[in-house]
Amino acid sequence: MPELLKFPNFSWVSLVCVLLSCELISGYETGGGIVEGKLNVHLVPHSHDDVGWLKTVDQYFIGSNNSIQGACVENVLDSVVMSLLRNPNRKFIFAEMAFFRRWWLIQGTEIKTVVKKLVATGQLEFVNGGWCMHDEAATHYIDMIDQTTLGHALIKSNFNVTPRAGWQIDPFGHSAVQAYLLGAELGFDSLHFARIDYQDRAKRKVDKSLEVIWRGSKTFGESSQIFTNAFPRHYSAPDGFNFEVSGDFEPVQDNPLLFDRNVEKRVNDFIDAALTQANVTRTNHIMWTMGDDFEYQYAESWFKEMDKLIHYVNKDGRVNALYSTPSIYTDAKLASNVSWPLKTNDYFPYADSGDSYWTGYFTSRPALKGYIRSLSGYYLAARQLEYLAGRQTKGPNTFSLGDALGIAQHHDAVTGTAKQHTTNDYEKRLAIGAHEAEAVVSLALSHLTTSKSSNVNCTTTTPASTFIQCPLLNISFCPPTESIPSGKSLVVVAYNPLGWNRTDVIRIPVKDANVIVQDNEGKTVETQFVEFDTVTRNLRSFYTEAYLGISPNEVPKYWLLFQASVPPLGWNTYFITESTGKGGYISTVDTPQDESIEIGPGSLKMSFSLQSGQLKRITNSKTGVDLPIQQSYLWYGSEADIQPSGAYIFHPNGSPPVIVSRSVPIKVIRGPLVDEVHQQFNPWIYQVTRVYKDKEHAEFGFIIGPIPIDDGVGKEVVTRITADMATNKVFYTDSNGRDFLKRVRDYREDWPLQVTQPVAGNYYPLNLGIFTSDNKTELSVLVDRATGGASIKDGQMEIMFHRRMLYDDGRGVGEALDETVCNKTTCQGLAVRGNYYMSANAVGSGSRWRRTTGQEIYSPLLLAFAHEKQEDYKASHSMRSTTMDPNYMLPPNVALITLQELEDGSVLLRLAHLYEAGEDVDFSTLAKIELKKLFAAKRIKMIQETSLSANQDKSAIKKMIWNVVGGSRGELAPVRGGPVDPLSLVVELGPMEIRTFILQI
Amino acid sequence: MPELLKFPNFSWVSLVCVLLSCELISGYETGGGIVEGKLNVHLVPHSHDDVGWLKTVDQYFIGSNNSIQGACVENVLDSVVMSLLRNPNRKFIFAEMAFFRRWWLIQGTEIKTVVKKLVATGQLEFVNGGWCMHDEAATHYIDMIDQTTLGHALIKSNFNVTPRAGWQIDPFGHSAVQAYLLGAELGFDSLHFARIDYQDRAKRKVDKSLEVIWRGSKTFGESSQIFTNAFPRHYSAPDGFNFEVSGDFEPVQDNPLLFDRNVEKRVNDFIDAALTQANVTRTNHIMWTMGDDFEYQYAESWFKEMDKLIHYVNKDGRVNALYSTPSIYTDAKLASNVSWPLKTNDYFPYADSGDSYWTGYFTSRPALKGYIRSLSGYYLAARQLEYLAGRQTKGPNTFSLGDALGIAQHHDAVTGTAKQHTTNDYEKRLAIGAHEAEAVVSLALSHLTTSKSSNVNCTTTTPASTFIQCPLLNISFCPPTESIPSGKSLVVVAYNPLGWNRTDVIRIPVKDANVIVQDNEGKTVETQFVEFDTVTRNLRSFYTEAYLGISPNEVPKYWLLFQASVPPLGWNTYFITESTGKGGYISTVDTPQDESIEIGPGSLKMSFSLQSGQLKRITNSKTGVDLPIQQSYLWYGSEADIQPSGAYIFHPNGSPPVIVSRSVPIKVIRGPLVDEVHQQFNPWIYQVTRVYKDKEHAEFGFIIGPIPIDDGVGKEVVTRITADMATNKVFYTDSNGRDFLKRVRDYREDWPLQVTQPVAGNYYPLNLGIFTSDNKTELSVLVDRATGGASIKDGQMEIMFHRRMLYDDGRGVGEALDETVCNKTTCQGLAVRGNYYMSANAVGSGSRWRRTTGQEIYSPLLLAFAHEKQEDYKASHSMRSTTMDPNYMLPPNVALITLQELEDGSVLLRLAHLYEAGEDVDFSTLAKIELKKLFAAKRIKMIQETSLSANQDKSAIKKMIWNVVGGSRGELAPVRGGPVDPLSLVVELGPMEIRTFILQI
Repeated sequence: MPELLKFPNFSWVSLVCVLLSCELISGYETGGGIVEGKLNVHLVPHSHDDVGWLKTVDQYFIGSNNSIQGACVENVLDSVVMSLLRNPNRKFIFAEMAFFRRWWLIQGTEIKTVVKKLVATGQLEFVNGGWCMHDEAATHYIDMIDQTTLGHALIKSNFNVTPRAGWQIDPFGHSAVQAYLLGAELGFDSLHFARIDYQDRAKRKVDKSLEVIWRGSKTFGESSQIFTNAFPRHYSAPDGFNFEVSGDFEPVQDNPLLFDRNVEKRVNDFIDAALTQANVTRTNHIMWTMGDDFEYQYAESWFKEMDKLIHYVNKDGRVNALYSTPSIYTDAKLASNVSWPLKTNDYFPYADSGDSYWTGYFTSRPALKGYIRSLSGYYLAARQLEYLAGRQTKGPNTFSLGDALGIAQHHDAVTGTAKQHTTNDYEKRLAIGAHEAEAVVSLALSHLTTSKSSNVNCTTTTPASTFIQCPLLNISFCPPTESIPSGKSLVVVAYNPLGWNRTDVIRIPVKDANVIVQDNEGKTVETQFVEFDTVTRNLRSFYTEAYLGISPNEVPKYWLLFQASVPPLGWNTYFITESTGKGGYISTVDTPQDESIEIGPGSLKMSFSLQSGQLKRITNSKTGVDLPIQQSYLWYGSEADIQPSGAYIFHPNGSPPVIVSRSVPIKVIRGPLVDEVHQQFNPWIYQVTRVYKDKEHAEFGFIIGPIPIDDGVGKEVVTRITADMATNKVFYTDSNGRDFLKRVRDYREDWPLQVTQPVAGNYYPLNLGIFTSDNKTELSVLVDRATGGASIKDGQMEIMFHRRMLYDDGRGVGEALDETVCNKTTCQGLAVRGNYYMSANAVGSGSRWRRTTGQEIYSPLLLAFAHEKQEDYKASHSMRSTTMDPNYMLPPNVALITLQELEDGSVLLRLAHLYEAGEDVDFSTLAKIELKKLFAAKRIKMIQETSLSANQDKSAIKKMIWNVVGGSRGELAPVRGGPVDPLSLVVELGPMEIRTFILQI
Repeated sequence: MPELLKFPNFSWVSLVCVLLSCELISGYETGGGIVEGKLNVHLVPHSHDDVGWLKTVDQYFIGSNNSIQGACVENVLDSVVMSLLRNPNRKFIFAEMAFFRRWWLIQGTEIKTVVKKLVATGQLEFVNGGWCMHDEAATHYIDMIDQTTLGHALIKSNFNVTPRAGWQIDPFGHSAVQAYLLGAELGFDSLHFARIDYQDRAKRKVDKSLEVIWRGSKTFGESSQIFTNAFPRHYSAPDGFNFEVSGDFEPVQDNPLLFDRNVEKRVNDFIDAALTQANVTRTNHIMWTMGDDFEYQYAESWFKEMDKLIHYVNKDGRVNALYSTPSIYTDAKLASNVSWPLKTNDYFPYADSGDSYWTGYFTSRPALKGYIRSLSGYYLAARQLEYLAGRQTKGPNTFSLGDALGIAQHHDAVTGTAKQHTTNDYEKRLAIGAHEAEAVVSLALSHLTTSKSSNVNCTTTTPASTFIQCPLLNISFCPPTESIPSGKSLVVVAYNPLGWNRTDVIRIPVKDANVIVQDNEGKTVETQFVEFDTVTRNLRSFYTEAYLGISPNEVPKYWLLFQASVPPLGWNTYFITESTGKGGYISTVDTPQDESIEIGPGSLKMSFSLQSGQLKRITNSKTGVDLPIQQSYLWYGSEADIQPSGAYIFHPNGSPPVIVSRSVPIKVIRGPLVDEVHQQFNPWIYQVTRVYKDKEHAEFGFIIGPIPIDDGVGKEVVTRITADMATNKVFYTDSNGRDFLKRVRDYREDWPLQVTQPVAGNYYPLNLGIFTSDNKTELSVLVDRATGGASIKDGQMEIMFHRRMLYDDGRGVGEALDETVCNKTTCQGLAVRGNYYMSANAVGSGSRWRRTTGQEIYSPLLLAFAHEKQEDYKASHSMRSTTMDPNYMLPPNVALITLQELEDGSVLLRLAHLYEAGEDVDFSTLAKIELKKLFAAKRIKMIQETSLSANQDKSAIKKMIWNVVGGSRGELAPVRGGPVDPLSLVVELGPMEIRTFILQI
């Protein structure tokens, strides 16, 4: 520090004192804390920093692109630290670790030292502590856990603290899974948010029931409850108390040298606002959220006003003001020892007025949502493989995909409510992360499949063969399968990330039908060729040009289908080789004669009407189900309106939805593995219905788009399934892909619903699926990504697949949700390709299908390709293997949701029971997992059970005991697994239980 | 600091290091300074903080009223200090002491200690250092000196430094007096500003003559020159380099963790901008003014970007960037040792485009300008009296008036370019200051006039009588004169702040003519009563109600006039007593018979036409002057326009000005002291022309307003004086009331003028007056406040007195200049009452009238009133006295412009020679002032000559030697007074010399 010599006779102590503003500390009394017997106003300084929205995450961090929004998170953190140092009574909370990490990594050791002190003393408190403030409607619980774990690990390793408060202030509705799983099970003791339905809020203000004890889980009940604080207004400061630099506020003017002294007025303003809030709040503690979006650009502007207010308000004495945090607030609430209302279920859907149901975003940007979901499953598999092959210290790893996925869970990312350029940035990050993860996967598969006999050290040696993957299979683009070099075979390695054996149909494009498929023993496998349809061909052509800038000369003629069987956490190998003559069964195109057309090579049959092309009936000879059913596409129109539909809001124009076609041509394709019905519903909706030989459900593949808007009408496209069932308004939708919640049309459990939007107000988020039942049959639909669904009439279910709008809906994003994609010459509306899955089951037996199939959809077989001479490959590779004990599988009610090698070499393991209490007679029971068999050939030296985010020992979690109005309702204690014996290493899981372990292996 | 104990094991050094960002110091290299042989880009961080404009000075300081403008100077200073501490290479300059004082007084000793270090090391440099960045067109040089002295004293006493740079970046044109008097004579060695005429700037960019050596004084020439830097663009940072928090800029993105790295691009942007500027600048040093209006709300936002730019630009190496200040820059310019262009005269008027001459503000808000000017004179007198009676340590003093006047000199205050509410605030401050100064004056007069025999200790005892003053005499409201209690006399004490004997006519309102005036010896004094006219009566009625909320029952019937004779720096006393019967001469109302009406009781005569009412001729039997002359009122119209007239800009609509009346009724009043011609030119212009028995000039009193705007036309009202003189385009206007500069119509000395605005482009600011001449006669007009004037045709002079406009002129104030005043029931346009003075003299003899009368106008007799029994009063008071040696007066070419007791008891004395070199044959000579006689009865223990602002010893001023193109032009060295012999104590003053002394008495 030679520069300091410029200050002769410089007093260090004096400088420190200055910088800590000793004179201000003495000048304003801000350290009085809580005062019993008074109304305590907890000022909670915070900055709500969206991990991308109007700008990208990096633009927000560094403050670029400020013409869109003046926001720089670096300023927030820089200036908050300085302001906290000026007065040790000041506090600040921070939530988004994706930002904090960006800042932390460029700080010097000295700033880091000071910040560690600020965290240790509680001046700086992390809340939520995930990578982002994730959404709660469009997120999958595994992604929520993963992104929280990332952030908590950063906090733990740098500060050795564990966040205590859930701080979900902005997401547009709140899920049951958030409350119990990402709340109580994380070790949080409170949850805070701003957005609940306007009718709900109004009633809760009257009841003083904004603050509740929320039991989000039917299974866990009281054992997984959390104190929940829904704000009486937004998460901004009360009117007149926003002190953002250059903002328009009335500063406390106590300087006798200046005109306009206003201390008394401002104290009265403060007390008025406090009493207003106290009037709707139990106990004499109220919270003021002192901040707003990207505020605290210059933190001192806030803190100097709050210092003055605390000083003068407390001098006045009518109420007591203090710097606080959600934790301090929650402790005070607990200490107040009053009774709290009970809340179950969730807070969906969210409406901010009668015309404004935020149910559009359940579906907005379906391609983004699909990409995120497919990468979520891929990330799970990639981490497994990374662990199994040994994590690389140099070279590619899965962090950047985890980072990108963590950011993508943000409540303006996966929701589809960010601006287009920000969405592009999310997608770019995902693509970069996926690209690196692909390298991890390819390398790991190469190492794992390389025969032990060849004596390869997996972490150091280049493997024998290099695998290629096909991330663009969704647009039917997969170069290695389309052209097999002469004299070589296409080696297909299928990896199964599930803990169960699995048989599935692999579907890859090939240029002609002159190929045969052989299994690892050289046996020819039954194949079926399905000709490329025109819609797929066009999609492939346009999107490869748009995304890759290339126009492939040759379009594959067929999809090659064959059945693969893969052991748990293992792989199997198939060889595809050119052969002279026909290689397999080329699907026949049926020319139906009868009015009723039945398809399905197995026990499941579906009937269609020849005349209308409509699905008529679904039957299953094995289960005895026989259900009259119809399926159609419709769209809701949205035009210029006081409240148009947009990225957030679904606000149909009031007309009934337009039925896309009452009569649709039908093309039937049949073969040994699958029968398919191809239907062009209209020029921009194409659907293929598939019934597989060995599957108990129908698979619907759709291509929707480009949605035309030249008629000036925005369109929100749904499929509607109408069954002959008396469902009595009731249907079920999942919470973040985990619990199923009962929904009742036009009804809310918590208040007498005034129905203003009979369609939009009945939409709920789907991540896993939706089902309904009558006294005989359960009809279930599963989805492949986040979307929205409803049952608008008894017997009906509808799911929204795509949306294209012409107007902004006025909630901030400032753009119409109008996604387009361009090649060199033209732009068109984005087309979306996806699947949904339908099964009809006898009442009470649907959950098995939903839970198992749900896992299969989330974790498809991971395919890797190579071109090798079959014999050479076989000589040096393991063809089929599991990394578990070959005689072991996970129980059917358990999924392995995390298997990951951490930076320090320890292993993070998460096991999830898939069934709720009472959901299935057989499977809603205690399950046991033998870790020794799961980790065959490895020795577990140490096992530690942790909180869900792995940031603390499970036993360290202290549960607060709350008085609940009506008490504990006499529920039975939930079934939970007992402690793990370190010798036997058997993990027990009760229904819905997720247990997290750190293993030393 | 017990709170620090919360940080266990806390390292002080580490914290300091953190707060000084040691890691950043090492991270970014910013301390390289100047590099020879490269283009050096001097980054000068600054915040331009208007001392009131859109908001009041206090609102700007504390950041209230931010809906108008987000601006808080407290934030600027708070955050700049923290940022300077983070990196000792960073620098910042600050100009406005009115703001700095507000901040400084609320800092604790520790912050003060650190700031003193920052100033001592040059990290924080004061520039200008006056109370405000004063205007240069509408300010009087005495006010400029006073406000600068206030600020420099604050700096000197707290930091023991003297500012070196004039930083007049925003004023709308630049005066000669600024350059030499408030520049070189202050001890400044450079002057920096942004605003010069657009044609001038264009030419100077081509010539590389934006930077010049400016010799603003004809008298002093080279001995009072200053290096002057007119910026090539505005005082903002170059485009793309404004880094205000939340502003829209492209931050330097060097973080490899983030997308969008742009270091190379930003370095190239920087170099491009630097080379562009280098192209119009001599030497390889250019200055970037890194700041803008009220910027640095969060200083770190600027400094972190500048740190990065300096680091990367210097790493690039093509140019060299450094933190700098105007002083460092000027030193570098001097060291470059090149030749500089010479500049004489001034930079008025200022136009920013062909349609946009900033010559309206010379006159805008004439009532404010008048109030400031009258209080300026009053402040001078009040400080004299405060000193003479002994400055009160407790109780009222003159500081708050000095403070208010200091603020009022700001370039948006006296200019009339602030918003109305801000203008109200200036006026309120002035009124508060004046009120306190009135108390000082009354008390001082009470003490001074109390007879020595009564043995009163002036600083401790309540004096014998209490004086009242009449600040609203300008609206003819003066309660003590209007009602004299029965049995008492009205005691009138007239104080003469001039250094000369003086005879003047006192004019006070009385309720009837039944009073007599007696002098201190009891002799009845000749009086003249002039009946109140209706316009004055209405004005009085409306404005007393509007300003005081009272409606006086009785309106005085007469003005009582009598002649008073008062010694220098002394007083005389008159007694006005009710008498039965007529107390004096009641002016006759003449009913003229002849076409030609001549008025004037003395040697000066003026002739009017009976028919037209027009002034026809002015003659003086004593001087032999005989000049045909005409005087009229006109107005320029201004309507909706691309460039309307407004607070700043005078942009007449192109039509010739409307002559208010070609024929005006004439009412002639005659008496022994004065003849008056009363004329109602139109319903809203009233003028009284007065010719006094003993005065060599005519006095014109006008009441203009309310200016009607119901015709949708804004009006700018001028008087035009047309004499039969061949003036050959030449006329003369003063510079800040001091030097007279030659003006040539449609011509600029520095470039070939392209005339776009033949009227507005020929307007110049007047503070003292305007004159013109032919080979025989000089015709001079003096004004009582700042205004604008021109000579649009030969023989003509016009002066603008009032302006009322309907549109904003688009230069930021955002309001039309439409002043109104309201009583309880109605609002009307503001009326303005004022005087101008005209004299015709033989060529070469006008300056004596202008200089002497100028002083009399600036320093009128100060009147104080009391009601006492005449005999009682006489028994205990001194009736007539001077505080000087009774046999001494100042020489007629010298004025006492400051006599003030400072806080430490020393006395500040400023003496000014009133004549330029060559201006008058007799008076443009060395004058001698005998301090022993000036300070009669006091002993001067010590005398120190100082710089103009009294902040350093005169001998400490170092003059820089500059090479000027064309050299020193062989001028004779100016006459200047020699050192003061401490024994004889005679001060010599050469022409135009102002000498400043600190005396210990």
